[in-house]
Amino acid sequence: MQIVIIGSGNVAYHLAKAFVMNNIPLVQIFGRNEKELSKISEELKIPFSTEKLQAADLYIICVSDNSVENVSKLILAKDSLVAHTSGSLPKEILAGDYRKASFYPLQTFSKSKSLDYSKIPFFVETENKEDQQILFNLASKISENVMESTHEKRKYIHLTAVFACNFVNHLFARAKEISDAQEIPFDYFLPLIDETVQKIHEIDPKSAQTGPAVRNDKRILELHEQLLKDESLEIYKTMNHSIQKMYEL
Amino acid sequence: MQIVIIGSGNVAYHLAKAFVMNNIPLVQIFGRNEKELSKISEELKIPFSTEKLQAADLYIICVSDNSVENVSKLILAKDSLVAHTSGSLPKEILAGDYRKASFYPLQTFSKSKSLDYSKIPFFVETENKEDQQILFNLASKISENVMESTHEKRKYIHLTAVFACNFVNHLFARAKEISDAQEIPFDYFLPLIDETVQKIHEIDPKSAQTGPAVRNDKRILELHEQLLKDESLEIYKTMNHSIQKMYEL
Repeated sequence: MQIVIIGSGNVAYHLAKAFVMNNIPLVQIFGRNEKELSKISEELKIPFSTEKLQAADLYIICVSDNSVENVSKLILAKDSLVAHTSGSLPKEILAGDYRKASFYPLQTFSKSKSLDYSKIPFFVETENKEDQQILFNLASKISENVMESTHEKRKYIHLTAVFACNFVNHLFARAKEISDAQEIPFDYFLPLIDETVQKIHEIDPKSAQTGPAVRNDKRILELHEQLLKDESLEIYKTMNHSIQKMYEL
Repeated sequence: MQIVIIGSGNVAYHLAKAFVMNNIPLVQIFGRNEKELSKISEELKIPFSTEKLQAADLYIICVSDNSVENVSKLILAKDSLVAHTSGSLPKEILAGDYRKASFYPLQTFSKSKSLDYSKIPFFVETENKEDQQILFNLASKISENVMESTHEKRKYIHLTAVFACNFVNHLFARAKEISDAQEIPFDYFLPLIDETVQKIHEIDPKSAQTGPAVRNDKRILELHEQLLKDESLEIYKTMNHSIQKMYEL
């Protein structure tokens, strides 16, 4: 099977790398950003182009949601399978006369950070059983965790991921801003952060809640509000309100 | 040195366990909750009492912030060192005629979850160098990571921990609420969560940010708002606003 990856961002890079590492050849990596493409091409030994899209059996589109539709129009082959990697778009957004699919890896990708691809859940949606088999076989060469998913379900998977990953990372960024301002090394907090996450592998997060809000410790909540301002203060109030609502305090 | 721990909650239990596991004998665990004390006493083979506080060289008060002052009045010995374990209170809250200290372990404690105590940072504040040496020596038997800290700094350490631990856990709880409602197993998200945290061991969280808000993907942000309500919707808006402010979007 001839596979082309379209895109040069974090998802394109890591998916290409996962394929190459698992001896799945890619015939091309295609996109607009020549500089990024040539870096990926050199590292992974895959031909790249910014101009001529190679004929292939499977195209995997790894571009931002806003660009998926336009990029999908570049694929003219009718006997190909085309999949996007978006958590939120329906497969019908793909605007061509080919078989359509969604191939969604549930992970956060940064170029400078290597990953254990075998743990990444892949969610697959296709038009028919044969295509499903193709994408299941492919994903199973990378990951232990491949599942079917409708577009409806995928939207909620993506939304959950925003809370559990994007927002969590932003809390780390705001936390570091607070500690940096006091010249407290952020490294001090890593064992605490590791334990916070380790805990929810064993305990329901609702049962694992600790801190002043769930203890309804008004003195501390007021003290902390005095130490904060702007967005961090807004986050502080919103999170405490939500905690107290969840536990009916 | 004769040591007494006062309290029967998560901090008291884990600190007592850390002492016992490192062959530091405790002469008593003292508190009000007989049921909890007797459980700890049985597991760790430490005498307990709800009535008569044992004479000791060092008392470590592990009770909620609201109770520290009252509990500290129970200690009448003048030649003792008394430390509380609060992240927010000054050592002067201790209301007795003894040497006062703060002994703050930066960790989240749940009774049902075991811990690697050697990784817990301990922050120590005392009235004099001799007491500092006593508490440093003690904490160093448990942890590799023992530091001095003023009350002022400790307040900000605690505040940072609320963002990086308590609020992060609450995001997990709200995320699980969303996935539970769609019958999506929360286990799917554990590799993503692990990676989110693994990342910040290597990359500054501000650089590691991903997701629709930092991409300024208005279509997804609007779609997600339609899927949410109540506190989760408030969190969604507040976090996205804060992300967009941080990156000046």
